[in-house]
Amino acid sequence: MVLYQGSFTLLLRKGIQLLAIFGTIPQLKLSNFRGTKIIFFGIWKLVLGCRVIYPWISRPFSSGGPQPQYDRSSVEDQVDPFSLVADELSIVANRLRSMVVAEVPKLASAAEYFFKMGVEGKRFRPTVILLMATALNVQISKPASEGVVDMFSTELRLRQQSIAEITEMIHVASLLHDDVLDDADTRRGIGSLNFVMGNKLAVLAGDFLLSRACITLASLKNTEVVSLIATAVEHLVTGETMQMSTSAEQRSSMDYYLQKTYYKTASLISNSCKSIALLTGQTTEVAMLAYEYGKNLVSIVLGNSESQTYLCFSTQ
Amino acid sequence: MVLYQGSFTLLLRKGIQLLAIFGTIPQLKLSNFRGTKIIFFGIWKLVLGCRVIYPWISRPFSSGGPQPQYDRSSVEDQVDPFSLVADELSIVANRLRSMVVAEVPKLASAAEYFFKMGVEGKRFRPTVILLMATALNVQISKPASEGVVDMFSTELRLRQQSIAEITEMIHVASLLHDDVLDDADTRRGIGSLNFVMGNKLAVLAGDFLLSRACITLASLKNTEVVSLIATAVEHLVTGETMQMSTSAEQRSSMDYYLQKTYYKTASLISNSCKSIALLTGQTTEVAMLAYEYGKNLVSIVLGNSESQTYLCFSTQ
Repeated sequence: MVLYQGSFTLLLRKGIQLLAIFGTIPQLKLSNFRGTKIIFFGIWKLVLGCRVIYPWISRPFSSGGPQPQYDRSSVEDQVDPFSLVADELSIVANRLRSMVVAEVPKLASAAEYFFKMGVEGKRFRPTVILLMATALNVQISKPASEGVVDMFSTELRLRQQSIAEITEMIHVASLLHDDVLDDADTRRGIGSLNFVMGNKLAVLAGDFLLSRACITLASLKNTEVVSLIATAVEHLVTGETMQMSTSAEQRSSMDYYLQKTYYKTASLISNSCKSIALLTGQTTEVAMLAYEYGKNLVSIVLGNSESQTYLCFSTQ
Repeated sequence: MVLYQGSFTLLLRKGIQLLAIFGTIPQLKLSNFRGTKIIFFGIWKLVLGCRVIYPWISRPFSSGGPQPQYDRSSVEDQVDPFSLVADELSIVANRLRSMVVAEVPKLASAAEYFFKMGVEGKRFRPTVILLMATALNVQISKPASEGVVDMFSTELRLRQQSIAEITEMIHVASLLHDDVLDDADTRRGIGSLNFVMGNKLAVLAGDFLLSRACITLASLKNTEVVSLIATAVEHLVTGETMQMSTSAEQRSSMDYYLQKTYYKTASLISNSCKSIALLTGQTTEVAMLAYEYGKNLVSIVLGNSESQTYLCFSTQ
């Protein structure tokens, strides 16, 4: 088991290294599906590695039914990592729609605005979180019976899906408030909520989603996870303030840029990945690797798409 | 002990009944200090009653030093309930100032705006919460030694003070967002934050305070309390939306008014009072009485000050 654990940790490290290498590929942009596939390939390697090492974790890997048998030598080039969690993403999306229902009709319309079918966005965060959950669903000690494994796996997977839902609610809340701050008129190809329903309802809907996320967090009964996610919310606010109050000197500082990017974008996903590890009962070391994975993933995606803009700007 | 517990429950009930009677007194307005004193007299009776029944709980009652001996027959007319927690309110206010410090200077200025000396408001919520804490600091079983009592009492009191701090942060966050929604230009006798620093920073400072409140909540390591307070935040949003989207029919409905008032004002304080009871290890029955106490207290204060306006409005 020590050897397995060591191999698993090595695999996580390898995944992070892979992402670092992929970060140098010019096509790596979130808007470029091929680039996004390359990013998820890093996580896919982890998933595959874990399934080879721990064959008994393959059951909770999808929403149910018989699992296809993969030939590892060819699978890396053929499987679309997005499709691995497609069924589960639908389950999460449906559950989110029921979670954001509000008592007052106007608030209900505002809160569900970006959870309706067709305007859910790329679902980048829940996808990464669910893939990370699959990669980390390794039990430290083998349970006594098959029935216990099933119950444990189902319960654990539901809790991990909750992290995906909480993260998405917080992400949408931050979008709603950001659009008010930026006076934006479009988002995800439709009118922004502040443009369609006004600033007041956009601010209130953001607050509502934050409180629903917090209630769901409490239901996980893990105060370390509550603290991690609450810290990520604080970081979102800090990053947004850094962006709107940048001095001329700060604008040409790479350190400032990286710190702002971490706060504004990477912190939520990295702390969510760490939360997944904690809920799974992984060691502190693995939890930190999961955290670093999320952080590096976002840095690569954003760094690649923003680096040219930054370089042009800083040499002006 | 059963008799003591029964007496204590009766005292809580009596406190609520007293408040109901005081609610009929015309002078009972929050802006009227005499009226506010009358409200706190209800809690003071609880505190006094508990101290008579449980003399060993008098130590954590204040911040330290020898305690004056009261003659119960005359004390009710002489003691100002506000002064009972004056020292502790200063401790809470100082700690709040250090808790809302942000990394980015602009956000720091915005977040501390209503925590600076002189603009902290009436501190109605922390006062009620600290008095409730004193009333409920009754140990179900007497600890083994004096030293254990001291350590237990100090730790418990710090956790209860945290509830006062969390509640105040959430209250101020809601004020900041409400002022943006209402386009208000003054608050607590000075310019509102949105008026002085703009809507963007007011929205961000509100979000920041909510996240800090959530981080502090997590540190209490009680997910039931996290859930209660998060529900109160959701209620604040629901109440605000009810207020801004009232139909003509709803405006003349007392049920709608009471529901809106509960969501917008009473829920936070009643759930905070319940949280105090839970942290103290009280029974579910006492926790519910504490909750009802907070709810009735706010209903009386608001009901009295708003009833004349409501009656005028509904008969127009």
